[in-house]
Amino acid sequence: MAAQQHLLDFCLSAPADGRTVLDALQPIFQERSMTETVHNLGENGYLVTYVAKSGSFATLRMYTDKLLTFDIHSYEADNKGRAAIETLCNRLEEKLKDLLQGNIKRLKRLPAIVRGGTIDRYWPTADGRLVEYDIDDVVYDEDSAYQNIKILHSKQFGNILILNGDINLGESDLPYTQAIMGNGAEDYTGKEILILGGGDGGILYELVKLKPKMVTMVEISFMVIDACCKHMRKTCGDVLDNLKGDCYQVLVEDCVPVLKTYAAEGRLFDYVINDLTAVPISTSPEEESTWDFLRLILDLAVKVLKPTGKYFTQGNCANLTEALAMYEEQLNKLYCPVEYSKKVVCVPSYAELYPFPNYGNAFYLLK
Amino acid sequence: MAAQQHLLDFCLSAPADGRTVLDALQPIFQERSMTETVHNLGENGYLVTYVAKSGSFATLRMYTDKLLTFDIHSYEADNKGRAAIETLCNRLEEKLKDLLQGNIKRLKRLPAIVRGGTIDRYWPTADGRLVEYDIDDVVYDEDSAYQNIKILHSKQFGNILILNGDINLGESDLPYTQAIMGNGAEDYTGKEILILGGGDGGILYELVKLKPKMVTMVEISFMVIDACCKHMRKTCGDVLDNLKGDCYQVLVEDCVPVLKTYAAEGRLFDYVINDLTAVPISTSPEEESTWDFLRLILDLAVKVLKPTGKYFTQGNCANLTEALAMYEEQLNKLYCPVEYSKKVVCVPSYAELYPFPNYGNAFYLLK
Repeated sequence: MAAQQHLLDFCLSAPADGRTVLDALQPIFQERSMTETVHNLGENGYLVTYVAKSGSFATLRMYTDKLLTFDIHSYEADNKGRAAIETLCNRLEEKLKDLLQGNIKRLKRLPAIVRGGTIDRYWPTADGRLVEYDIDDVVYDEDSAYQNIKILHSKQFGNILILNGDINLGESDLPYTQAIMGNGAEDYTGKEILILGGGDGGILYELVKLKPKMVTMVEISFMVIDACCKHMRKTCGDVLDNLKGDCYQVLVEDCVPVLKTYAAEGRLFDYVINDLTAVPISTSPEEESTWDFLRLILDLAVKVLKPTGKYFTQGNCANLTEALAMYEEQLNKLYCPVEYSKKVVCVPSYAELYPFPNYGNAFYLLK
Repeated sequence: MAAQQHLLDFCLSAPADGRTVLDALQPIFQERSMTETVHNLGENGYLVTYVAKSGSFATLRMYTDKLLTFDIHSYEADNKGRAAIETLCNRLEEKLKDLLQGNIKRLKRLPAIVRGGTIDRYWPTADGRLVEYDIDDVVYDEDSAYQNIKILHSKQFGNILILNGDINLGESDLPYTQAIMGNGAEDYTGKEILILGGGDGGILYELVKLKPKMVTMVEISFMVIDACCKHMRKTCGDVLDNLKGDCYQVLVEDCVPVLKTYAAEGRLFDYVINDLTAVPISTSPEEESTWDFLRLILDLAVKVLKPTGKYFTQGNCANLTEALAMYEEQLNKLYCPVEYSKKVVCVPSYAELYPFPNYGNAFYLLK
C-alpha cells in the first residue's frame, strides 16, 4: 500500500475569478462526497481542500497571479481506485478547459508521484534533479559499518548499486567502467594496476580480461563486495568469487594506510584507478573535508605511480561545474605538478552526463 | 514567480499516535503564524492543513498504517523565502526524528517540485516516469499546423527539440543519429537514401559527410526544419540552410503520397531511414490507428527499397516491451516477409535506453 499523488497545473494568461472557479468545481467534488473547506487568503488567493471519508483528498491552490495547482492524493491500491482518481483528474481538466477556454496558457499534468511505496523509485541526480527510475524490486538493503548498501532492480538498467542514497553503478553501465579505464586507449597487458575502491568489481573484471601482470584492488567494505558478487554479476562476472586470482588480489582495507605503506616501501604501479565514492568513506581521521581527502588520495596516488604512470578517476556529474573547477584547482596544490585531460561520457543509469578526468604525471614532470 | 513544493515522507515501523504527533508539531507552525485545521478521518487517520497569510501552506496526511506525508508549498521567489522553507522542512524532520526515534523505517525528502515556472523542467519518459531536466531557457515555442514545437536549452544536453511534449532529440544525441544509421556498419558512399521525417537535420547532416549519391529527405513541417536550422546547429550543421545541395534535397511534404508516387514510378533506394515521430503526424486520412500508419509506412518503404536495400528506424523506449512486441508483430503482416535485428543504445537526453530495429528485406526474400 502506498499513497498516490497527482499534480495538475493551469497557467493562465489573465487572472481568473476565484469564486467562479470554485462554484464550477463544486459539483465534481460533491458527486464524490468530498467535503470542501475554503481558506480565503485575500490578496493571496484561495486554498481549498476537498476531503473524502475514505481518506482521499485534494487541495486546490489559486494563486492570484494566474496559477492554479491541484494536488489529488489517494491511498487506493487497487486498479478501481486508481481509475477513479484518473477520472477525477480528467473531469477537473475538462471542466476548467471549458470554463477558462482561451485563458489557459499551459496545462501540465505530471506522472503520479508514489509516496511511501515499498519500492522507492525516486533517486535524485548528483545536481539535485528529481528522477523516477523504473525500479521494480529491492534486491538487497543493508547497513554496513560505513554506509547503507542498496541493490535495486531496474527494468532497463539491470541491478543498480546505491550507496548512501547515491546511484553508484548499474549493470548497464559498462561505459562508466570503460571510461574510467581510459576508453580502450590503454594497453594493460603485463601492467601493475592499483584500484582504489571499486567494490562492485566492474573495473577488476574488465582488467583481468586484458592479461595484466597484477591488479591490486583496495576496497574498504566486504559487504559491498559480497552484495555485488551475488547481485551485480553482469558487472563483476565471477571475479569477486575469490579475493585472489592468478593476476589479482582484493584487499579489504581502507586505502589510505595501504597507499602510505606502498609509498614508504617504494612500491610503484603503472596505473592507479580511483573509483572511490564521491563522498568519501574512510577510517583515517586526518582529512577535514572532502577536498582534503581528495588531495590526500591524489598526493599518495602520485607517490606510488611509476614515472610513466597514469591516474584515472571519475569527475562527478557534468553539471556540477563549480565542483569540477574546484577539483581541477586541487591539482595545482599537489606536491608535484601534473597535467590532465577529461572526457565526458553518458552513463546509462545516471540519467546525466559524467566527465572522466585522467592524469598523467611523470611524462609532464620531465617538462 | 513560481510555486515550490517540498515533499517529505516518513515510513514508520509501527503506527504513531496522531494526536501526539500533531501536538509536537504545533509550536513549529505556530511560530510561523500558520493556522492549523485538523480533519479527523477516523480509522483513516488525519489530514491537517497549516496556512499562512502570505499564502504559503503545508498539508500533513497521517495514514493510519505507518505513513506520514508532508507537502510544503510556498510562493516565495527570493532566496530568503526559499531558505525559510528549507528551515521549516529541517525543523519538521528533526522534530519527528526526535519524537519517533527508532520507529522511522525510511525518511524521504524529494528535490522541491516547481509548479507554474516560466521554464518547464518536467518531461516524462516514453514509459511515463517523471524526469526533471536541467532546462534553463526556452529557446523556441510555437504551434504549427501539425504540432507544438519547443526547443529548450539544457545545461548538459544542449538544445532539445520537443514535439507535442515528447523529447525528440538533444544536441547531445549523436548516438541516436548514429544508431538509426546503423552504427557505422553501413557504407553510404554513392548510395541513394530516403529519409522519412528527420526534420532536425541530424541524419541528413551525418549522411552528407559520407559522400552519398543522393539523399532525399521528406519532412512535413517547414517550421520544424526552420527552428532546427536556427537552434539545433550542433545537430544539423549548415545542411538545412538550403533545401537543396549537391547530393541532397529536402521535400517539405507528407511522406505518404511521396512514397506512393515513388512506388508507382518504380523509384528505388538503397536505404530508407524512418525518423518519423512515435505518434504519427500525417495529412492522409486512410490510417485508422498508429499501427495501421506504421504498417502503411513499412509496406510503402519496402516497395521503394532495392533488392539489397535496408530499412532503419527507432523502436521507442526499451521499457515499452508490449509496444515493441506489437511492432515486431506488424512485420509479419507486411505483404512480403522481412527479417530484422535490433540494437539498444543509450540516448543521452532520453534518460532511458532506446532500441533501434533495422530491417533488411530483399536478401531475406531470396530464401
